[in-house]
Amino acid sequence: MSEVLKEKCGVFGCFNVDNATLINYYGLHALQHRGQEGCGILGYDDQDGFLLKKGMGLVTKKFTMSDFNNWNAKNSIGHVLYSTTGGSIDCNVQPFFFNLNHESFGLVHNGNLTNAHIIKNKLESEGSIFQATSDSEVLAHLIRKSKEKSRLEKIKSSLNVINGAFAFLLLFEDEMYAIRDRNGLRPLSIGKFNDGYVVSSETYAFDVTGSEFIRDVNPGEIIRISKDGIESHYFSKNNFNNVCSMEYIYFAHPSSTINNINVHNFRVKSGELLAQQSKSYPGEVVIGVPDSSTSAALGYARSSKIPFDIGLIKNKYSGRTFIQPTPELREIGVRTKLSVTKDVVKDKKVILIDDSIVRGTTSKYIVKLLKDNGAKEVHLKIASPPIKYPSYYGIDISTYKELLAANMSVEEMKNYIGCDSLEFLTLENLKTLFEPGQGCFDIFTGEYPVDIYDLNKGV
Amino acid sequence: MSEVLKEKCGVFGCFNVDNATLINYYGLHALQHRGQEGCGILGYDDQDGFLLKKGMGLVTKKFTMSDFNNWNAKNSIGHVLYSTTGGSIDCNVQPFFFNLNHESFGLVHNGNLTNAHIIKNKLESEGSIFQATSDSEVLAHLIRKSKEKSRLEKIKSSLNVINGAFAFLLLFEDEMYAIRDRNGLRPLSIGKFNDGYVVSSETYAFDVTGSEFIRDVNPGEIIRISKDGIESHYFSKNNFNNVCSMEYIYFAHPSSTINNINVHNFRVKSGELLAQQSKSYPGEVVIGVPDSSTSAALGYARSSKIPFDIGLIKNKYSGRTFIQPTPELREIGVRTKLSVTKDVVKDKKVILIDDSIVRGTTSKYIVKLLKDNGAKEVHLKIASPPIKYPSYYGIDISTYKELLAANMSVEEMKNYIGCDSLEFLTLENLKTLFEPGQGCFDIFTGEYPVDIYDLNKGV
Amino acid sequence: MSEVLKEKCGVFGCFNVDNATLINYYGLHALQHRGQEGCGILGYDDQDGFLLKKGMGLVTKKFTMSDFNNWNAKNSIGHVLYSTTGGSIDCNVQPFFFNLNHESFGLVHNGNLTNAHIIKNKLESEGSIFQATSDSEVLAHLIRKSKEKSRLEKIKSSLNVINGAFAFLLLFEDEMYAIRDRNGLRPLSIGKFNDGYVVSSETYAFDVTGSEFIRDVNPGEIIRISKDGIESHYFSKNNFNNVCSMEYIYFAHPSSTINNINVHNFRVKSGELLAQQSKSYPGEVVIGVPDSSTSAALGYARSSKIPFDIGLIKNKYSGRTFIQPTPELREIGVRTKLSVTKDVVKDKKVILIDDSIVRGTTSKYIVKLLKDNGAKEVHLKIASPPIKYPSYYGIDISTYKELLAANMSVEEMKNYIGCDSLEFLTLENLKTLFEPGQGCFDIFTGEYPVDIYDLNKGV
Amino acid sequence: MSEVLKEKCGVFGCFNVDNATLINYYGLHALQHRGQEGCGILGYDDQDGFLLKKGMGLVTKKFTMSDFNNWNAKNSIGHVLYSTTGGSIDCNVQPFFFNLNHESFGLVHNGNLTNAHIIKNKLESEGSIFQATSDSEVLAHLIRKSKEKSRLEKIKSSLNVINGAFAFLLLFEDEMYAIRDRNGLRPLSIGKFNDGYVVSSETYAFDVTGSEFIRDVNPGEIIRISKDGIESHYFSKNNFNNVCSMEYIYFAHPSSTINNINVHNFRVKSGELLAQQSKSYPGEVVIGVPDSSTSAALGYARSSKIPFDIGLIKNKYSGRTFIQPTPELREIGVRTKLSVTKDVVKDKKVILIDDSIVRGTTSKYIVKLLKDNGAKEVHLKIASPPIKYPSYYGIDISTYKELLAANMSVEEMKNYIGCDSLEFLTLENLKTLFEPGQGCFDIFTGEYPVDIYDLNKGV
Repeated sequence: MSEVLKEKCGVFGCFNVDNATLINYYGLHALQHRGQEGCGILGYDDQDGFLLKKGMGLVTKKFTMSDFNNWNAKNSIGHVLYSTTGGSIDCNVQPFFFNLNHESFGLVHNGNLTNAHIIKNKLESEGSIFQATSDSEVLAHLIRKSKEKSRLEKIKSSLNVINGAFAFLLLFEDEMYAIRDRNGLRPLSIGKFNDGYVVSSETYAFDVTGSEFIRDVNPGEIIRISKDGIESHYFSKNNFNNVCSMEYIYFAHPSSTINNINVHNFRVKSGELLAQQSKSYPGEVVIGVPDSSTSAALGYARSSKIPFDIGLIKNKYSGRTFIQPTPELREIGVRTKLSVTKDVVKDKKVILIDDSIVRGTTSKYIVKLLKDNGAKEVHLKIASPPIKYPSYYGIDISTYKELLAANMSVEEMKNYIGCDSLEFLTLENLKTLFEPGQGCFDIFTGEYPVDIYDLNKGV
Repeated sequence: MSEVLKEKCGVFGCFNVDNATLINYYGLHALQHRGQEGCGILGYDDQDGFLLKKGMGLVTKKFTMSDFNNWNAKNSIGHVLYSTTGGSIDCNVQPFFFNLNHESFGLVHNGNLTNAHIIKNKLESEGSIFQATSDSEVLAHLIRKSKEKSRLEKIKSSLNVINGAFAFLLLFEDEMYAIRDRNGLRPLSIGKFNDGYVVSSETYAFDVTGSEFIRDVNPGEIIRISKDGIESHYFSKNNFNNVCSMEYIYFAHPSSTINNINVHNFRVKSGELLAQQSKSYPGEVVIGVPDSSTSAALGYARSSKIPFDIGLIKNKYSGRTFIQPTPELREIGVRTKLSVTKDVVKDKKVILIDDSIVRGTTSKYIVKLLKDNGAKEVHLKIASPPIKYPSYYGIDISTYKELLAANMSVEEMKNYIGCDSLEFLTLENLKTLFEPGQGCFDIFTGEYPVDIYDLNKGV
Repeated sequence: MSEVLKEKCGVFGCFNVDNATLINYYGLHALQHRGQEGCGILGYDDQDGFLLKKGMGLVTKKFTMSDFNNWNAKNSIGHVLYSTTGGSIDCNVQPFFFNLNHESFGLVHNGNLTNAHIIKNKLESEGSIFQATSDSEVLAHLIRKSKEKSRLEKIKSSLNVINGAFAFLLLFEDEMYAIRDRNGLRPLSIGKFNDGYVVSSETYAFDVTGSEFIRDVNPGEIIRISKDGIESHYFSKNNFNNVCSMEYIYFAHPSSTINNINVHNFRVKSGELLAQQSKSYPGEVVIGVPDSSTSAALGYARSSKIPFDIGLIKNKYSGRTFIQPTPELREIGVRTKLSVTKDVVKDKKVILIDDSIVRGTTSKYIVKLLKDNGAKEVHLKIASPPIKYPSYYGIDISTYKELLAANMSVEEMKNYIGCDSLEFLTLENLKTLFEPGQGCFDIFTGEYPVDIYDLNKGV
Repeated sequence: MSEVLKEKCGVFGCFNVDNATLINYYGLHALQHRGQEGCGILGYDDQDGFLLKKGMGLVTKKFTMSDFNNWNAKNSIGHVLYSTTGGSIDCNVQPFFFNLNHESFGLVHNGNLTNAHIIKNKLESEGSIFQATSDSEVLAHLIRKSKEKSRLEKIKSSLNVINGAFAFLLLFEDEMYAIRDRNGLRPLSIGKFNDGYVVSSETYAFDVTGSEFIRDVNPGEIIRISKDGIESHYFSKNNFNNVCSMEYIYFAHPSSTINNINVHNFRVKSGELLAQQSKSYPGEVVIGVPDSSTSAALGYARSSKIPFDIGLIKNKYSGRTFIQPTPELREIGVRTKLSVTKDVVKDKKVILIDDSIVRGTTSKYIVKLLKDNGAKEVHLKIASPPIKYPSYYGIDISTYKELLAANMSVEEMKNYIGCDSLEFLTLENLKTLFEPGQGCFDIFTGEYPVDIYDLNKGV
């Protein structure tokens, strides 16, 4: 329910796969939770060459079966786009396709570059032009401008110019490149599909498409996929496994596994640790904010021995809410999305688990909803530390202003939200869920794994 | 996930409510789980008279905000339709509106009449004609033909002619009638909305619309709502509280309360009783089939002390599946709907809770899915007794052929489904969840609370 | 461009035709100009029985190819609905289907009954109920209530009860009836399609579907179509060929032929007669209001020897106009629909031909448009007499208030419209286009061919 | 009805116009006949900067009123796209927007560059990358790479590099440029809208939007529009008024005026000349293929004194045709688009006027349709010379193979089409409709006004 901390994009690609674009469609469908604003697929086949279909909206809205009937591509890349704020939206829908007389190629990107502004300035002064308001095109320009001889060397040298968080897929006529930044901030995995390969932001898309997980792409790695199979290269020697902790806390699908840690299990454990922080438990029932906090609530209940229950239910038919003329009707519109199992919370001291707090407006609403339905007390437990700093790697919380924890003490937050107590998972406890030295916690600590050059640049 | 046992219809009405048709829209939206095939609203206001909008599809598809902009009705009735098989579908969408020179009125119906065929024959022989393939029009004809003097007496005498399961709302220019059959087989409740009244198949729609629950309409009761408030009448003296047990087991929204029993709580208890039937537990983890079996799984876990976990996740973006040309692609299409949290079930003995088994095809698929994801054993526990008999009260399981339990022993069912053990909640245990003498269990026992005249008539 | 004088409905039916419902779709598509508000098809086949699909909107919007894929009906009836004003719109979409235990049947109707109100009162007092706000159901009730023995006799006796304008198609399991009122006010023709039969409001639909025209259904005739072929019966002895003159003047497709008179030819001749009324011609160029007045303009030009030209062009991509916030933008919205060929009218005395004047607002707009584009003078010639009386046979000009000619002299109309002269075709000249004694001219003369019982009844 | 000779694109722009994007929408709506595949609008306002909306489909489908509600741009450019064959369609939808750190701008293009391939090669070798498969981006790259100092000089020097047919609009934050190639192959006009300016491919869009025509942009001219008004510059000294003759013959709207010649008048005169070529006339009635050949038919009739009539009528509700399973159904699908007024052609010698013949399949179909409806003879007269050569300036007839006249003699064409005689307007006669030395007739003569560098490149 976190209202601002939206996921930023998902990528999926196929190489040497029959019905590649349709498999790509299903891959993107499984990654839909990473972006609902736009989507697209670029396919390549020897006969018809590259063909691109992209546009605004969900994959089930943009594509229909007839789109795939005669699309015989065996190689493809696709993208789901998360919402950008303002600006020229339609032009940011990916894949980007670079149609050239020699070596046309396509690109999809999940992440954010921290020195894009500087590179764009330099490229522009040399005559390059850009069509999107996002940074994702920069890599394509660098590759084309590179003086290196081979394609691989061009890509390597270009990757060494950019900083930030990124998972890239590049599709050429005869090969695909799957690339992950040197800090491994964004997830990317490779799998097998019959005789071919698939690459995905999350392993859940392998389960759906019936692909077999091979391994994660490593930080700093370039995997080259061609008819000869897969080859591993590195563009960087100093690599770190700093996958963004928010992937586990909020973004990724519970069925996905990143760095050998299953997301659902991670969340269950975060709930257990959260319970172990307390010596006494103020509640009689533990409920989670659906869907992303159910796992943590389960963990909290297990460790605290307080019964877990289903206190909040999301409406599966919600759909679009009308713009309503009166406050009463607006409130009804909101209530169509989330309902309370009254008997579970009535006259009870409720322990409410949420994964994180960004602006706090949803938490405030839910606490009120529970109290309106008879909850005696609501104790809010957050399965991650307070988010005090903006993120610069493709997560849309780029300003201090909207971060509740950047502007209030825990006591002030408690009063704002209206709950009876408020507790966060400690950073120390969160870190125990990662291998030593791994994970990125910048939004909790303000310590960024890479230099930030473009602090004043919104996306 | 029960594939045949679909819910049959929901009704919602407003009387003396500002923006009645918009409130009705939200009421139907909250009842959408009771029928997704069609929907409609009939509004009445003194200036424009009756206005009807209805059609196929979800309420969010059929209606847009502009439909309500100038619809100033203060009284309204609405309906969500569950799928009928074959026949003239479009003509069954409700409300039915009877446009007459004197005393026009509208009608919505949830349920099924067991002597409709006989009554229709008689009415037809007298010249009546019907437009729908469903029975719901019969009541309107009987009322119009009644020789009684007052409208109330006409309604009463007509209700005494029909048998079966029904919750009716009738909307006249100046009053509304809310009616429930003498066995109370279908739920119907009345609530307060500001100065007016609302009537709903389920109390969950009161929560969403911000209405205040007053009470259930009683079996055999006619509630007349007019500008003078509500009046209670009875058309029958011998009434029974035989609400259909499947409402609790599968149909109703967990947040709803019927006969003072909350649906979620009922399901939790059914899971607890199911666990208490066994002396030993073969599993290491308890998981439920989402969404309707989660509550029962929770109860089973509580009572058995085996950990509850989230082993199956429904895709919230599922949408329509394409018709696929190959079996491999078809399987992918199915997998987009339901995913397994692999780490939860891998190498585990899994206790899988489902609410009921109808044809068994979904159970078979889920057991295979769990085993494909590494489950060592799958023990299937069903939170209701075997469904051995068809239902004649508006639930679409009208033939023996498709009921697995009508055609196989438990051992045969186990083998068909492919699970390692199979256990059902006993009828005795199910009955303990009701007040003595209450509840309808006909699909488990074959004992129907009313005579069945139309055995060979499917709807 | 006549803004009020809308066509009222079209009917099309198939009997013993392969892919009957798809052929019916194309038949309705060809009759789309007779009604754009709603449409529907009822099909019958021995295996699945009756199946009905209907709803609001154009046939190309309501139906998709998949609707016909498995619809194996060999018999069908269909309808396109013209807009009704206010009231319960959705319930008037036809076909009406009467689902009965014995002898279910469907009905479509083009026309209007003048004693429906009285019959409905009587039927209601006997307990009949109606679902539509239109009169079309009345016939079905009468048939069911008839004491006659055979189906044919029931239909005959029922038709003798109703007055007004009508073309009916009735579809039973084993036969179809095509019926035309005794004055022949609405057109109806029968054709051959391979081994089967088709019936249509206009012969143009035969051309499109590749059917062979046989003959018009005669006034007072009931054509019974069964596996044995077609049989002719009459429900009335005193029949008259009073087809509504507006069918030729405005409603019907130019390619259609009614009573052996081609519609386009009729219009050309009306233009010729209009020219012959004058001794001198005030103009330098003759232009018509597209599309319905082009034929008359051609005739006028031929007879007057003044050059015909294309002075007004309809935009083929017009589509829906947005609701605009400012008058300037609203005017642009209107201009998207019709454009002037400036060079044709600039500095010219223009003779503008229109088929008829109803409210005069469109004429006023077009005269202004021509003058804004440089026309020196605009002389408006109307290819029909002034419409001074409302119509009671299914044409929507039911009140005096909106008829310009009912409220103004020709001189006043000229001033209101802003043209330099205004002339109408005389009634005498119009009548010469018909066989002696034929044709209905009620809206020009106030002399109605049948008694009007329901003067105060709007549809 | 010409089935291959599709129009290629239309452009419309607004500068200093209130509700610029909405006015642009209406401008594009009026240019819809120039391209139905895609459309887009780029707006600029000081507060929100550039905002781009574009996508596949008609403007009435892509845009809704809500798109314009809060779009306060005062400057904008827009484009309607004609279909390209194969390749990456979605990426060719214009406007192209170049989002740069300094001097972002947008571009729309109607036309085709003949040396784009060579320039792209050079630009690519320097590192430029392209996103569309069309050439339209090339100009933007050249401008950015130019070493000239001022923006105007950069544009001038870039335009001197490209060859071919083009009308360009460039939109910067503070100014707009309207550019036409040195041969004036594609039309472009400038108009006044209140205090601001509009630019359009055709003057018809000025009529619709209520703009006042100022003048055509001249061949070789760059019109700079800014807050200071309009300034004229030239990038070329040797300019020619070689507007493509097909604009008059087929592409442009009849209401439009190009080089002071009204399109409808041009067509009427071409028909007159065509009649004057013959000494005797073989027919009894003259009919035109709607809509584009009606004007020429009128001219032919006037000059030959043979009566003009409406023999063919286009269906205004045609819409999409279903893919049909049988030949019989496919033929019905085709017939829904065009109908014959049987009485006009039956037993007549028909003179059928068409604007041009490309592949001849439509002509063949229409001749058959006329004969099926009883025409005794069909004499086909074409209001332009035989198209023997492909076009390289943005008209999609790029190969010899599909051009009937490139592969057959007139006699062979007559036999293929099945008409009784076939005659074309002579090139000499066509040329008399232009000022001496003006007009481009390349598809008739094979003499191209500019060098063709990219012969083997289809777009």
